[in-house]
Amino acid sequence: MEFLKGDERLDHLLAENLRIIQSPSVFSFSLDAVLLSRFVYVPIQKGRIIDLCSGNGVIPLFLSARTKGHITGVEIQERLYDMACRSIAYNGLQDRLQMVHGDLKEMTAKFGYGKFDVVTCNPPYFTTPSNDYKNENEHLAIARHEILCTLEDAVRASSQLVKQGGKVAFVHRPGRLLDMIMLMRQYKLEPKRIQLVYPQQGKEANVLLVEAIKNGKPDLKILPPIFIYNEENEYTDEIRAMLYGE
Amino acid sequence: MEFLKGDERLDHLLAENLRIIQSPSVFSFSLDAVLLSRFVYVPIQKGRIIDLCSGNGVIPLFLSARTKGHITGVEIQERLYDMACRSIAYNGLQDRLQMVHGDLKEMTAKFGYGKFDVVTCNPPYFTTPSNDYKNENEHLAIARHEILCTLEDAVRASSQLVKQGGKVAFVHRPGRLLDMIMLMRQYKLEPKRIQLVYPQQGKEANVLLVEAIKNGKPDLKILPPIFIYNEENEYTDEIRAMLYGE
Repeated sequence: MEFLKGDERLDHLLAENLRIIQSPSVFSFSLDAVLLSRFVYVPIQKGRIIDLCSGNGVIPLFLSARTKGHITGVEIQERLYDMACRSIAYNGLQDRLQMVHGDLKEMTAKFGYGKFDVVTCNPPYFTTPSNDYKNENEHLAIARHEILCTLEDAVRASSQLVKQGGKVAFVHRPGRLLDMIMLMRQYKLEPKRIQLVYPQQGKEANVLLVEAIKNGKPDLKILPPIFIYNEENEYTDEIRAMLYGE
Repeated sequence: MEFLKGDERLDHLLAENLRIIQSPSVFSFSLDAVLLSRFVYVPIQKGRIIDLCSGNGVIPLFLSARTKGHITGVEIQERLYDMACRSIAYNGLQDRLQMVHGDLKEMTAKFGYGKFDVVTCNPPYFTTPSNDYKNENEHLAIARHEILCTLEDAVRASSQLVKQGGKVAFVHRPGRLLDMIMLMRQYKLEPKRIQLVYPQQGKEANVLLVEAIKNGKPDLKILPPIFIYNEENEYTDEIRAMLYGE
């Protein structure tokens, strides 16, 4: 297998001592994926986890350091799916991590209802009424805009795939908090933990983390805020620990 | 007029240079009321504001320092209404502040639909399926529990009283975020600004502030977090400024 193609590079996931294939023109993971990987509750010793909109497999890779369970990543773009497969192979994680090339809307037909303990998803953030994305290349546009998958598609698929009492965790922009909550409740996912991420003290939140339980009882907690940068515009200790394991 | 009755005392609202009548056995205002008074947008020079579940009138008194508009407070408990009236008189604010003794569910019949620029509400926080409140005296129980007014009653009344494009601001516990958002949207109030208050860095949020616009367009912002105490367990500078004007 050829490990690197075109402008790809082999980046470090330092905190996890893993490597990941990235490409500036195709897909590079964001801090949001790291935040979601740290936020979600995962069973430590076993269990089945599925990550939707998996991109280059960053969330399965991060989660592999937190659980001994089996993790499936679903990615609709063949180019990104291929990058994820090669990263998994490079790290020797084929026994626990599996990528599926396909549409999340078809995963229930493939796997059945209620087969996963945990579902994670870092979906496209931008709705696409206009042609705002026409200057992006197709790979980036599909990853960033609701072209092949709306938020409702992702929430519906998550609800179908997770078992009763299982967990579904999303990362999104705070501006979609209301849509997220209403869609989750519509699909029987009860939000139980919300965490907001702020770029700095005194600034508005720019990342939203939500974890819901399938058919859970209403009892929402809002976790302590996370700040990305300190007053010197350096990563806070909390973020450094996530990224570099310091 | 007799200014103080029973165990009442005349407390200072230092930041606003006002006085307020309080009573440990009947009603004392909470920090939540202060937070809501600072959070809500109010027209500075004029306008009509109505405060529901007004208690001893703390929010009208605080808002009187931020606006020259006319403020109406609504309180169902005659004893608290009476305290509020005497505080308003003591501060010589009768020309701009008015208290109404009545049920918020009847205010639309009294004032008409869409007559206010701003509605504020610090409602009872606790739902009342059990007899959890049986050890409280009646005044405190009514102020704290959804006995005479549910959250839906308060949101519905707010939506009816506010004009198109006017603002409705509530303070509540974060655990009710989902109910608050869903009720607001049900009654055509679009949440636009949310702010979370945390007792200290690293702790879960314990106060939720939400401002909605009647028939507003979806566009939610989550404002910077507020912390009550610093690491030395003293009020933060932000809270000291609110309380003492320092």
